[in-house]
Amino acid sequence: MARIVMKFGGTSMAGTERIRRVARIVQRQQAAGHEVAVVVSAMAGETDRLVNFCREASALYDPAEYDVVVASGEQVTSGLLAMHLQALGCKARSWLGWQLPVRTDDAFSKARIEGIDSAELLASMGAGEIAVIPGFQGLTESNRITTLGRGGSDTSAVAVAAAIGADRCDIYTDVDGVYTTDPRIVAKARKLKAVTYEEMLELASVGSKVLQTRSVSLAMKENVRVQVLSSFIDDDAPAADTIPGTMIVADEELEGYEMERQLITGIAADKNEAKVTLTRIADRPGAVASIFAPLAEANINVDMIIQNIAKDKGETDVTFTCPQADLARTQALLEERKDQIGWYRLIADSKVAKVSVVGVGMRSHAGVASTMFKSLADRGINIQAISTSEIKVSVLIDADEVELAVRILHTAYGLDAQ
Amino acid sequence: MARIVMKFGGTSMAGTERIRRVARIVQRQQAAGHEVAVVVSAMAGETDRLVNFCREASALYDPAEYDVVVASGEQVTSGLLAMHLQALGCKARSWLGWQLPVRTDDAFSKARIEGIDSAELLASMGAGEIAVIPGFQGLTESNRITTLGRGGSDTSAVAVAAAIGADRCDIYTDVDGVYTTDPRIVAKARKLKAVTYEEMLELASVGSKVLQTRSVSLAMKENVRVQVLSSFIDDDAPAADTIPGTMIVADEELEGYEMERQLITGIAADKNEAKVTLTRIADRPGAVASIFAPLAEANINVDMIIQNIAKDKGETDVTFTCPQADLARTQALLEERKDQIGWYRLIADSKVAKVSVVGVGMRSHAGVASTMFKSLADRGINIQAISTSEIKVSVLIDADEVELAVRILHTAYGLDAQ
Repeated sequence: MARIVMKFGGTSMAGTERIRRVARIVQRQQAAGHEVAVVVSAMAGETDRLVNFCREASALYDPAEYDVVVASGEQVTSGLLAMHLQALGCKARSWLGWQLPVRTDDAFSKARIEGIDSAELLASMGAGEIAVIPGFQGLTESNRITTLGRGGSDTSAVAVAAAIGADRCDIYTDVDGVYTTDPRIVAKARKLKAVTYEEMLELASVGSKVLQTRSVSLAMKENVRVQVLSSFIDDDAPAADTIPGTMIVADEELEGYEMERQLITGIAADKNEAKVTLTRIADRPGAVASIFAPLAEANINVDMIIQNIAKDKGETDVTFTCPQADLARTQALLEERKDQIGWYRLIADSKVAKVSVVGVGMRSHAGVASTMFKSLADRGINIQAISTSEIKVSVLIDADEVELAVRILHTAYGLDAQ
Repeated sequence: MARIVMKFGGTSMAGTERIRRVARIVQRQQAAGHEVAVVVSAMAGETDRLVNFCREASALYDPAEYDVVVASGEQVTSGLLAMHLQALGCKARSWLGWQLPVRTDDAFSKARIEGIDSAELLASMGAGEIAVIPGFQGLTESNRITTLGRGGSDTSAVAVAAAIGADRCDIYTDVDGVYTTDPRIVAKARKLKAVTYEEMLELASVGSKVLQTRSVSLAMKENVRVQVLSSFIDDDAPAADTIPGTMIVADEELEGYEMERQLITGIAADKNEAKVTLTRIADRPGAVASIFAPLAEANINVDMIIQNIAKDKGETDVTFTCPQADLARTQALLEERKDQIGWYRLIADSKVAKVSVVGVGMRSHAGVASTMFKSLADRGINIQAISTSEIKVSVLIDADEVELAVRILHTAYGLDAQ
């Protein structure tokens, strides 16, 4: 017997027929002898509908009241799933965020979970009752509803799993696991049996949108084993244990899943980057700080930074990347400070993409980066910038070449399925 | 300065523009110097949508989970109205049923309010904050959501008014007050300045659907002054104080409103009755009890009962009325017990209507009933059954003659507007 948290997103909860399917999937886990808690999202489209009402009320709406409004979507689906489970003969009940409670700080609309009181929940589950918990919502110390920010239900599920000491947190999504790369780009992409928390964080940060980054960070901190698997499995199929997705686990657990671990786990591409170059910056202490301090203050996430070797006249060019969505604000901020920073030309380019190779294996192996550079150079793909972490190498290239680059690297690192 | 509870129904809360109008109406009351709490229903149609999801989940859905699902509708509108009030520059916040809390018994889906903790609420209102409270919902001692049954928001409003010692509970509806009779039947019907709780209860029980009967009973018990007024007033009009609807008050307060009180306050008609006659019942002790005991057990509300004088052979006919919606069940229950009760023929007739004259004035005046019988007889309307209470006389007549009867009586008791 295991204790399992199952999480279903909005697409899985959109309407009576789909909730009934979810109920059957949950029922099978219980029938397999497990204690089960289920975390649910609102019906697809419902949160948008509610957010729209808030925006119509006021452009500057009160985030505390916003949370009262939008938390209702998950309240509805949790009550309905409990009913559907009961209709299948299971014992089940809903536990709303304020009932457990899921304690959060008071940062309304983007709250952080501080803890979940689990005594009542564990007693109920121990008595054979399936717990249905709305994701995304919590309660402040002053007894007001909070929400965790969009997509927060993954984080709720991991937090519940941590609180009840679950053996596993299964996140049912519209993909059936984590792949070596996007299967729409590389037909020979393989589903991974397991990745580490850090790999998942790096993959998420470079555009693989399988899981909320926050939920992976929390899983790593609390050491919760997370499984990504498909909610579109045939509901007459056996329980999820026998058709696994991808496990997300700690480094030391990895060997249990992958006998022959590749050096590189996956290749990710991110087309939402933009590149900015400022020319003829004075090559003196503090010059670079005067560029990035205002961007940091404006919450603009600068990723890659390249400072060219100082040329004649004590001047240098500085290139960096930021999210495309922030490009206009970035340009405006730099224009305002043109004299103070002392740049000559500002060149913005949003036709770039970032391609990353990720893998814990590269910690112990040299040559990962040079394989990447050589493979791309052999096919004439120009690298505009480079950044690295302990388990990742990213390069910035022309946006038109991104699919080609991913395919080249997928083959070069031996990831193609046989 | 007064302390006022304002209640708005689903039609008034249906969508952004209407909620904005409600916010302006509320704002005007605060601007007039009053402390204000607002009780709101879900958007029109929303509760039906949610109930439908529950029915699709299971024909025998768990009422506790039903309450989790349907209570969300009022949660949404209370958060939105608080935002709209803030957008107008008012201080405002929502107080959900579990936050106050509104304490109820655990009769899920038809709970009764046991009390409302008002200390926090009064402190907030005293600090100039408008309290927005979702109607229809409460909390059990075991920390679970309840709802009060359909239309329960009127009851919530009265309960809040009682808890905070409000000077008045204003119920905004789609009519602008209580009339001497239905203005669609009698063009000369007059809006009443005031009626007593007991009159309102009698009017409600005979088909005047202005207010939930439960809310009037509670108002009477707690001595809450209730005002029925229109939510469709021009929102540039002055505050509601100056365009009154109908006040519902205790007997002793009535004189303050109506200088020249009529003997009869109003005429009501109810077309939802059905008549059942059982012939040749044995005229012996216990015979009648054997008819009505099973109906009472089945929660069928029998209203008028007539037992004809025993004819020859020690037999009698028994006639009674019940709601049309329960007629089929009533017939089935009686058929099952035909031998036990010992009836000969069962004659059901749903083409009947009940017309009632109501007024506290009739307590001190004889002749009210005889005026009624004579006026109807003069126009050839046959009376099939009669029932009376201290402040009401009802007669059962042919359904086709109901409008005519109401007009005749409205004139006969001097209620026609000049």
